[in-house]
Amino acid sequence: MATTALEGVIAYPVTPFSRTDGGPDLARLAELIDRLIAAGCHAIAPLGSTGESAYLEDREWYDAAEASVAAVAGRVPTVVGIADLTTRGAVRRARYAEHVGADVVMVLPLSYWKLDEREVTRHYQEIAGAIGIPLMVYNNPATAGVDLPPELLHRLVDRVENITMVKESSGDVQRMHRLVQLSDGALPFYNGSNTLALAAFAAGAAGWCTAAPCLIPELTLELYRAVRAGELDAARRVFHRQLPLLRFLLGGGLPTTVKAGLALRGLDVGEPRLPLLPLDEERTGLLAGLLAEAAAPGA
Amino acid sequence: MATTALEGVIAYPVTPFSRTDGGPDLARLAELIDRLIAAGCHAIAPLGSTGESAYLEDREWYDAAEASVAAVAGRVPTVVGIADLTTRGAVRRARYAEHVGADVVMVLPLSYWKLDEREVTRHYQEIAGAIGIPLMVYNNPATAGVDLPPELLHRLVDRVENITMVKESSGDVQRMHRLVQLSDGALPFYNGSNTLALAAFAAGAAGWCTAAPCLIPELTLELYRAVRAGELDAARRVFHRQLPLLRFLLGGGLPTTVKAGLALRGLDVGEPRLPLLPLDEERTGLLAGLLAEAAAPGA
Amino acid sequence: MATTALEGVIAYPVTPFSRTDGGPDLARLAELIDRLIAAGCHAIAPLGSTGESAYLEDREWYDAAEASVAAVAGRVPTVVGIADLTTRGAVRRARYAEHVGADVVMVLPLSYWKLDEREVTRHYQEIAGAIGIPLMVYNNPATAGVDLPPELLHRLVDRVENITMVKESSGDVQRMHRLVQLSDGALPFYNGSNTLALAAFAAGAAGWCTAAPCLIPELTLELYRAVRAGELDAARRVFHRQLPLLRFLLGGGLPTTVKAGLALRGLDVGEPRLPLLPLDEERTGLLAGLLAEAAAPGA
Amino acid sequence: MATTALEGVIAYPVTPFSRTDGGPDLARLAELIDRLIAAGCHAIAPLGSTGESAYLEDREWYDAAEASVAAVAGRVPTVVGIADLTTRGAVRRARYAEHVGADVVMVLPLSYWKLDEREVTRHYQEIAGAIGIPLMVYNNPATAGVDLPPELLHRLVDRVENITMVKESSGDVQRMHRLVQLSDGALPFYNGSNTLALAAFAAGAAGWCTAAPCLIPELTLELYRAVRAGELDAARRVFHRQLPLLRFLLGGGLPTTVKAGLALRGLDVGEPRLPLLPLDEERTGLLAGLLAEAAAPGA
Repeated sequence: MATTALEGVIAYPVTPFSRTDGGPDLARLAELIDRLIAAGCHAIAPLGSTGESAYLEDREWYDAAEASVAAVAGRVPTVVGIADLTTRGAVRRARYAEHVGADVVMVLPLSYWKLDEREVTRHYQEIAGAIGIPLMVYNNPATAGVDLPPELLHRLVDRVENITMVKESSGDVQRMHRLVQLSDGALPFYNGSNTLALAAFAAGAAGWCTAAPCLIPELTLELYRAVRAGELDAARRVFHRQLPLLRFLLGGGLPTTVKAGLALRGLDVGEPRLPLLPLDEERTGLLAGLLAEAAAPGA
Repeated sequence: MATTALEGVIAYPVTPFSRTDGGPDLARLAELIDRLIAAGCHAIAPLGSTGESAYLEDREWYDAAEASVAAVAGRVPTVVGIADLTTRGAVRRARYAEHVGADVVMVLPLSYWKLDEREVTRHYQEIAGAIGIPLMVYNNPATAGVDLPPELLHRLVDRVENITMVKESSGDVQRMHRLVQLSDGALPFYNGSNTLALAAFAAGAAGWCTAAPCLIPELTLELYRAVRAGELDAARRVFHRQLPLLRFLLGGGLPTTVKAGLALRGLDVGEPRLPLLPLDEERTGLLAGLLAEAAAPGA
Repeated sequence: MATTALEGVIAYPVTPFSRTDGGPDLARLAELIDRLIAAGCHAIAPLGSTGESAYLEDREWYDAAEASVAAVAGRVPTVVGIADLTTRGAVRRARYAEHVGADVVMVLPLSYWKLDEREVTRHYQEIAGAIGIPLMVYNNPATAGVDLPPELLHRLVDRVENITMVKESSGDVQRMHRLVQLSDGALPFYNGSNTLALAAFAAGAAGWCTAAPCLIPELTLELYRAVRAGELDAARRVFHRQLPLLRFLLGGGLPTTVKAGLALRGLDVGEPRLPLLPLDEERTGLLAGLLAEAAAPGA
Repeated sequence: MATTALEGVIAYPVTPFSRTDGGPDLARLAELIDRLIAAGCHAIAPLGSTGESAYLEDREWYDAAEASVAAVAGRVPTVVGIADLTTRGAVRRARYAEHVGADVVMVLPLSYWKLDEREVTRHYQEIAGAIGIPLMVYNNPATAGVDLPPELLHRLVDRVENITMVKESSGDVQRMHRLVQLSDGALPFYNGSNTLALAAFAAGAAGWCTAAPCLIPELTLELYRAVRAGELDAARRVFHRQLPLLRFLLGGGLPTTVKAGLALRGLDVGEPRLPLLPLDEERTGLLAGLLAEAAAPGA
């Protein structure tokens, strides 16, 4: 896969869990992926933060990775997410992802102890060196516990051959401007902060990594279309139409809220895994209201 | 002045100080204002943060306010900045600004003790109630010491008749989106974070409050033009061309860096007032380089 | 005054305001100072944060400084507080304080624009160089807007002859340990965070700068006595007895809460100056309860 | 074990790794534990943050837990640390710890997604409900990614029978004062911030959870003795003597720095596990200097 092929709305499915044994429900996962592709999403990214990647045992993770790639079946690129506390665990999963046919692996430096630049660099070198497919570095200090500033991201891309993309989820649009400057516009970067989607596209993001297409694919795709067409007013309107929902989804934790939203949309994907709890009744009511508002033609 | 007339690039002149007695140099101030209007700026905002408003004694401030309005001479709107630690001091200056013909006063809730909502509201009510011209609420937690979240800004506009505009300088573009939502797009808001200019216009800002036109008026105006014309790629290019300079100006403190830049441009506006110090030699060299780069046709 | 004389509980009176003209009520100020000395406080510090120093016009400040020194009448040291946005304003006030007989000036680097080390140093040099009495550097980032880390505090003391003491109000006891280490225990430092009083004394603080003696002088003095006597359990008990009140006083802003408390104690000191508002009814009720609890023999 | 038996210096051994296969070196672990008990430490806490608990595979963790309890052999209490991203993983390890004879389990709510109070409570209920031994709740927002404020800690202790102790590592001594107040002094709390050891004992901490005894057991024990004897000056002196070392150990990450220190002390415990790297040469030199200084009789 050419790196430049990765553009647009990159959709993050949840990992459905069976209500009987609690394990990944691979059939339901395939169904969700089908929906996302049918709706027009430009790539599929299983096992991200939304996919509870860090909460899966190795065997479960392997199965979900394999099933995802099979479900996508080459119709669009597949980006498989990895978040493991040890380097050897991350290497193991990256190799497996490549083995089952992933196009890209996206790696979050999930950390217990803070990592310094030496440690972050070594971690990524070990993982990238173990595979032959491109690696997307994922910066999300709020979940990872370690922050990768633009200068470090740029150095990683510069030093390690198959690190070719960056996903920025720090929530600071300035970081994106900085990435453009450091790379003279050559580094493709992807926005992972839903509520920053408009600003990120304005800043030149190649794509939007988001779980929102699980619930409102048409609105996320219309934002991308409008921006690319230079229709800034239309982009702003469709962004504001989905913003209350985007804010709610993030605020409640993506696996929790997206799973609740899918149930409201008629697709039962089970509960998030403990320590996460399902959305409570009151907030489920709020979510139903937000989904209705976003869908309303006059909104 | 109709509120809606305030749009585009709102230029913040420094307050020049005499090298002999240290007082405001009103002739030089008028000269700078002339330059800004000649360059095409859409409004002039003397005595802002850049204008060292908070460092002036009452008499100096009165003189600078009066001289500024006279220099603008109605060619564009004049927005006079106020930042005073006490309500009675702020009221005094607001009345004077109206008296000498200002179109708008922009008020920062400069605080020693943190203010709660009751106190912020009372402060603004007292000031707004003492004048008949529109008041722009200015949120800049980094300099003011108090933060006005979007909900509070919206309530202030809602409750006090002649509070009709908001200047947002928290550096968080989400705040702007929130203002749009709270007011259904009816509240004109102005961006005061230079490095957020592109994102703010994308979010629907009515204008950009900036000292940068003192040094690079044409680039700031071109950004505004490109955004309004829906030329997002051109906007991004001209924004990135000025971004390193904008970052430098803010990082070093606006009065310090803009005064140094004006000297490099051939206009001696004196030194900032102690405790501020003039830009040191090394950083003046950096600034000269950034100015040259921003000006280069091929940049 | 020898610097080493400043030890123990350094009491911060509010500045009473007249209910008729709003100006400083100097007779009431003298009465409050008398009470504090009679109760056994080891020094008096008028015109601190609690004394609304930054909210006074020059004339008012001069009068309050002069009246305070006269009221103390040499019975204990007088430490006069200064917080001015400009260096020249701070110099003016420092000179006046020396002129009327202050023993020490305590200077907060109140800032609008962030100051770098060069600027902070120059500011203190100008002030210290203008007077012949000792200067206490006051670090309180929450109110000043600029943070003076221990290394900078140590350099200021090291470089400027009559800067001989530090007041630390960052709320971080580690800063105090760091000051001890940097100066090999030679630099007298004073704690300005009420809720940190026990930890600060354990860390070796020479004194406690506090407005609490306006309301509970005996408890603050007993804490000091117990710590000095090595009675750690007794110290902890008396500290916990006053802690809920200390927390409340700080949380609501010292001028606001201490003025309300003095009224409850029967001394009418007027209202804090706008933008500060008097404590509302509900919180005045809470304060009355906390005062009663702290006073209860069985508490 | 009666809860009240846990007092004093609770020593955290590293988990030694074999230089041949990278797995836990159980013989070396037993040797280290023997040293700590021989030096006089009051309890042993294997598999804490220092013990790289979160970086071990289940099998490795089980073996290290079993070997630790066996090495302690009932001479002092054993507190086994657990930090697992899922509730079911934490339950599994807690059961195993009880099974092999641990006296207490200490549980950190290591999180990927932020947990709300409902989720934290359920997590702890599930774990505590699965075992019959006491559970110590461990608050360390910097490593866990979730912060447990004093009110929540108090509610957990209140609601769940065998949650009987709290370890506080937020670095804020106010939290400890708050715990004392909420429980009327009845809740035993333990300090996990090395650089806060003096302030924590002054605040009434029952013990100090620390890896420092691996390197300087006598200094940590002397601090405890002096505080308990009410010798505050002696306590302060011995605390300041070890503080530069404590600061260094924490700053570089405990597994990294303590392992390097043990090698300098002649006990080879291998390297920390990737992504952690061994201490580099320059900092190893600094550490050697700090160890020498702490040991010097005249220090």
